[in-house]
Amino acid sequence: MRAAIVGVGLIGGSVGLALRARSGCSRVVGVGRSPDALEAALRRGALDEAATDLAAGLRGADLVVLAAPVRACIGLLPAVAAAVGPDAVITDVASTKAEIVAAAPPGPAFVGGHPLAGSERSGIEAASADLFEGATWVLTPGGATATWAVERVAALAAGLGARPVVMDAATHDRRVAAVSHLPQAVAVALAAAVPVEALPLAARGFRDTTRLADSSPEVWNDVFATNRDNVVAMIAAMEDVLGELRAAIAGGDEAAVAAIFVRAAARR
Amino acid sequence: MRAAIVGVGLIGGSVGLALRARSGCSRVVGVGRSPDALEAALRRGALDEAATDLAAGLRGADLVVLAAPVRACIGLLPAVAAAVGPDAVITDVASTKAEIVAAAPPGPAFVGGHPLAGSERSGIEAASADLFEGATWVLTPGGATATWAVERVAALAAGLGARPVVMDAATHDRRVAAVSHLPQAVAVALAAAVPVEALPLAARGFRDTTRLADSSPEVWNDVFATNRDNVVAMIAAMEDVLGELRAAIAGGDEAAVAAIFVRAAARR
Repeated sequence: MRAAIVGVGLIGGSVGLALRARSGCSRVVGVGRSPDALEAALRRGALDEAATDLAAGLRGADLVVLAAPVRACIGLLPAVAAAVGPDAVITDVASTKAEIVAAAPPGPAFVGGHPLAGSERSGIEAASADLFEGATWVLTPGGATATWAVERVAALAAGLGARPVVMDAATHDRRVAAVSHLPQAVAVALAAAVPVEALPLAARGFRDTTRLADSSPEVWNDVFATNRDNVVAMIAAMEDVLGELRAAIAGGDEAAVAAIFVRAAARR
Repeated sequence: MRAAIVGVGLIGGSVGLALRARSGCSRVVGVGRSPDALEAALRRGALDEAATDLAAGLRGADLVVLAAPVRACIGLLPAVAAAVGPDAVITDVASTKAEIVAAAPPGPAFVGGHPLAGSERSGIEAASADLFEGATWVLTPGGATATWAVERVAALAAGLGARPVVMDAATHDRRVAAVSHLPQAVAVALAAAVPVEALPLAARGFRDTTRLADSSPEVWNDVFATNRDNVVAMIAAMEDVLGELRAAIAGGDEAAVAAIFVRAAARR
């Protein structure tokens, strides 16, 4: 199998490292705009070869993994579809799925994908062949997607140590809004809400709860923009629970405070 | 030096373990209501001896460390003051300081204390002699507290590997509301806000951001009740930032989203 990876950052680079280290993939080609990033990915052993020209990099690929930011992937889809043969499967690794599935070229070959693995770090330096070990990898085929295409992406995910799970794109986006996009928004809002003069007293609780706030706003604007309604609804739900907890504390209603703790612990 | 520890849970047990392992303390007596908890603390090596009777356990102590929940400590203060001699220093390790400092018996011997170390776990099983290594240990003397008393507690903190910092109780309580009590409230509200059906897609971001939600509501009702105004104000501030972020996402204002990320990253 010949694989092409478009975008060689944390996720794309990790796919390359894992494909070369753990799967029977014969050739991994990296495609990107930055020769420096491609050079770094080659040096790290994530790629067999690199190309800055999309059509050249994709020529002869059996599997194309789009690992650029989601809106960039959506913009690239027509050119990617034009560059590969009819038997090539195209997938992506972006955090939101409904918009890219809706934008996919007609035909059997596109399968949306989202490995639930990542880091607040970014770039090829943070990439790892083990990033997907034990992770859930959601696959979101569209209405026209062929079973053989889904199976090829499921085999990719399983070969990289992940557990492939098929789900429709809308369900995926609603659920990750809750367990991924909301924690990101909360971590950022929490860090931004804390007065600077209090920081010398910060300990592990603050550090863990705000760890995600180190993530890049560019990546997250992409996610929020392509999952807007779900994210806005989840932030509003979080504001409601915070308001409920605040009122219970302000009113000295310790049973109500305890009830919210019990609800929270049941999710852990 | 002879030390008595009232309450042998996570913090009291760790003080005992650390005093016996690292300091020149000649004798560590544990005082508690539960013979089982005292027996477990003896078995773990956190104590030289144990007492269920407060006056008996405190007899001859040079240093008393109150490590029960804060409202229990406040209730015990008169009996503790009556049980020890005039040269004994009394301190505590509770998360809030203004109420206990205000309730302290008149005289030079009480020094409020708060080691900024802990865990979402509780009980003697989670105790560790290294818990305070590298931590800040805030000391909040009252108006009548003697310098020699502050110095004795500072020496305790330093002997256990922590960095003692003197601060007035009101400033302490305002700052920990921001960096400790707010993250706790946020972690609990976040976990409680997430729909159960989304949990199978939860990954490391959700787990880290909600780790504090495993903490005990009993402990936290104590903290919230004794730092109510500061905690309520910080939760309201968090709701404001979340509302600001939600509006920026809803309106597609990516510069405003990025500005909140930048403010957040500056606190990390």
